[in-house]
Amino acid sequence: MKSIPLIVMGCGGVGRQLLQHIVSCRDIHALHHGVRLRVVGVADSKSLLSVPDIFTTELDDHSIGEICRLKSNGSSLSSLTSYGDYQVFSDSETITNITEIASHLVRSTGLAVVDCSASSDTIGILQKVAEMNVCIVLANKKPLTSSMEDYDKLVLHPRRLRHESTVGAGLPVIMSINRLLSSGDTIHRIVGSLSGTLGYVMSEVEDGKPLSQVVKTAKALGYTEPDPRDDLGGMDVARKALIVARLLGQRLELDSIKVESLYPAEMGPNAMSVEDFLANGVSQLDNSLADRVEKAASSGNVLRYVCVIESSRCEVGIQELPKNSALGRLRGSDNVLEVYSRCYSEQPLIIQGAGAGNDTTAAGVLADILDLQDLFT
Amino acid sequence: MKSIPLIVMGCGGVGRQLLQHIVSCRDIHALHHGVRLRVVGVADSKSLLSVPDIFTTELDDHSIGEICRLKSNGSSLSSLTSYGDYQVFSDSETITNITEIASHLVRSTGLAVVDCSASSDTIGILQKVAEMNVCIVLANKKPLTSSMEDYDKLVLHPRRLRHESTVGAGLPVIMSINRLLSSGDTIHRIVGSLSGTLGYVMSEVEDGKPLSQVVKTAKALGYTEPDPRDDLGGMDVARKALIVARLLGQRLELDSIKVESLYPAEMGPNAMSVEDFLANGVSQLDNSLADRVEKAASSGNVLRYVCVIESSRCEVGIQELPKNSALGRLRGSDNVLEVYSRCYSEQPLIIQGAGAGNDTTAAGVLADILDLQDLFT
Repeated sequence: MKSIPLIVMGCGGVGRQLLQHIVSCRDIHALHHGVRLRVVGVADSKSLLSVPDIFTTELDDHSIGEICRLKSNGSSLSSLTSYGDYQVFSDSETITNITEIASHLVRSTGLAVVDCSASSDTIGILQKVAEMNVCIVLANKKPLTSSMEDYDKLVLHPRRLRHESTVGAGLPVIMSINRLLSSGDTIHRIVGSLSGTLGYVMSEVEDGKPLSQVVKTAKALGYTEPDPRDDLGGMDVARKALIVARLLGQRLELDSIKVESLYPAEMGPNAMSVEDFLANGVSQLDNSLADRVEKAASSGNVLRYVCVIESSRCEVGIQELPKNSALGRLRGSDNVLEVYSRCYSEQPLIIQGAGAGNDTTAAGVLADILDLQDLFT
Repeated sequence: MKSIPLIVMGCGGVGRQLLQHIVSCRDIHALHHGVRLRVVGVADSKSLLSVPDIFTTELDDHSIGEICRLKSNGSSLSSLTSYGDYQVFSDSETITNITEIASHLVRSTGLAVVDCSASSDTIGILQKVAEMNVCIVLANKKPLTSSMEDYDKLVLHPRRLRHESTVGAGLPVIMSINRLLSSGDTIHRIVGSLSGTLGYVMSEVEDGKPLSQVVKTAKALGYTEPDPRDDLGGMDVARKALIVARLLGQRLELDSIKVESLYPAEMGPNAMSVEDFLANGVSQLDNSLADRVEKAASSGNVLRYVCVIESSRCEVGIQELPKNSALGRLRGSDNVLEVYSRCYSEQPLIIQGAGAGNDTTAAGVLADILDLQDLFT
């Protein structure tokens, strides 16, 4: 029986869902595929909870259930100062302890550190374990969108780093691009609608609805961040674009990507509250966007908020695209990626589907973990 | 430097293209990824050509070029009775020699046997090497669509068997399904248009063209097999459907799949020559298909020739599908796969793109080979 020891960092939505997925399918994997997923530690932003003996014990179903319940109630792992046989370490001890676990396990079975947080604070520990030959699986975009210097340290062993869920949740985006690259195909152009929120907004606006109304509906449906400007500003798409561009070999920093924001700086969070933006700000943007939609329609095109990545270009913003393309036909909150390459020159390779949601994102992380199994003993 | 020794079986279109891809990218892989693709043998249906020392030598660029030239001229490897330092074995010795190479390499670096043929004759040798823990990469559908008994022997070590190019050429179909399965997602339904030829035929017929005219045009464009009935009969799609259904765990034989043929038995190859079928047979089918197209259109649907795979169903034939779905919008010869699962329940996961062509198929094979690298030393 092969064993994959895991430390899961971040047990908010995605991390919690991952732990639940692991509980519900680890017996099947052990039975049918000879792989045992063994959770040896769980960390939130403040603490690390680890098993008493990292070589032989694991978090059992009951304990994982308890942790999930605790976290969904908004509590911190630190409240579990003494929980069964498990050890709970405070913030300052977390890095030291993860490093220690890693140094022991790397020499025996191997270890995978899984980052399901949305924080930049994990970059230090990830670099440390990458150097130690630990496998890393990321749902967190921040470590891959920090400086090139940080990036290079993280991708030190490319086969030991998986991050499918950083772009398009569980959609097979990263893996498909990696396969094209390793087959010697030449990628000319990638265009993607990688924000479910902005996909929804652009297709609703295409139907003639005012931006302000669409944004309010999207917020009410839970499609947006608490402050919708976090979506409308485009930075989340820019991070995904950066991850793809770096995969293609572009040595690029986040702040050098041209990002079009759907709202002007004078309506930014420093100048206006969320309430004020929704009540008075966003409606001022209705007409100009409606004009652009109409202008595009007059040439048979539609507007989409996309990333465009070419050999020496990485941009994020509104583009006019043919109505009769995968991106042009997009409705609702699905993500779509079009890849043009030597093999897919006239018609692109298209990957489309739900690109958000804890369930789908966690499923992508779990598939990444299992795809690392050949590196474990 | 990691080494992946390869034996390539079948050097017709796909195999030859694979060898050329290997020549053009193996230096890049060695330099940037530390992986050396080392071709130690090449086999066609009659002979095996192998290097003098399987541990240290490989087919160099010049020799691979010579072999490709020879095969594109329609010659057999057996005509190379003495070619440089290489050894050429006749048919009867091929299996013995591949087994011998495998037994030596499996204990040291490992070996990948790549089947780019379209023959059932390779099943025996593939079973033998599977048992020896050799890695297997298939573009050939036949070994996976033989009896369940043969299938079980081939998938003995699932991680050592890759066959992306058996369905949809280089499109990431198999890998995406495998990822969903390993993440514990539940796949409810897969619908796919997996024949570029039939995709083209159905979208042209949808435009009101008579089937007979579309088939003749498709043949003239080189979209069909020399005898277009090989496409119209649906058996190629049935093989792909079987591969997908077995991946989902269905224990199914090829002859138990319900396959709708676009021509009746009395127009089959035993009853009618190709010329007769094209001149007199196929036009008799024009009206009934046109009627079906019209009937579908009256309910806002279109006809597509698809495979439908559900938990206890695997069928191949014409289906009425919503015009406004990925399959309904399909034009030309692209393949499309729609996957409905727990994670992709309302909207499916869609994979679309060119699903044929030697270049794309060989690229998929090469990506499979490189994805095996963690199993090599």
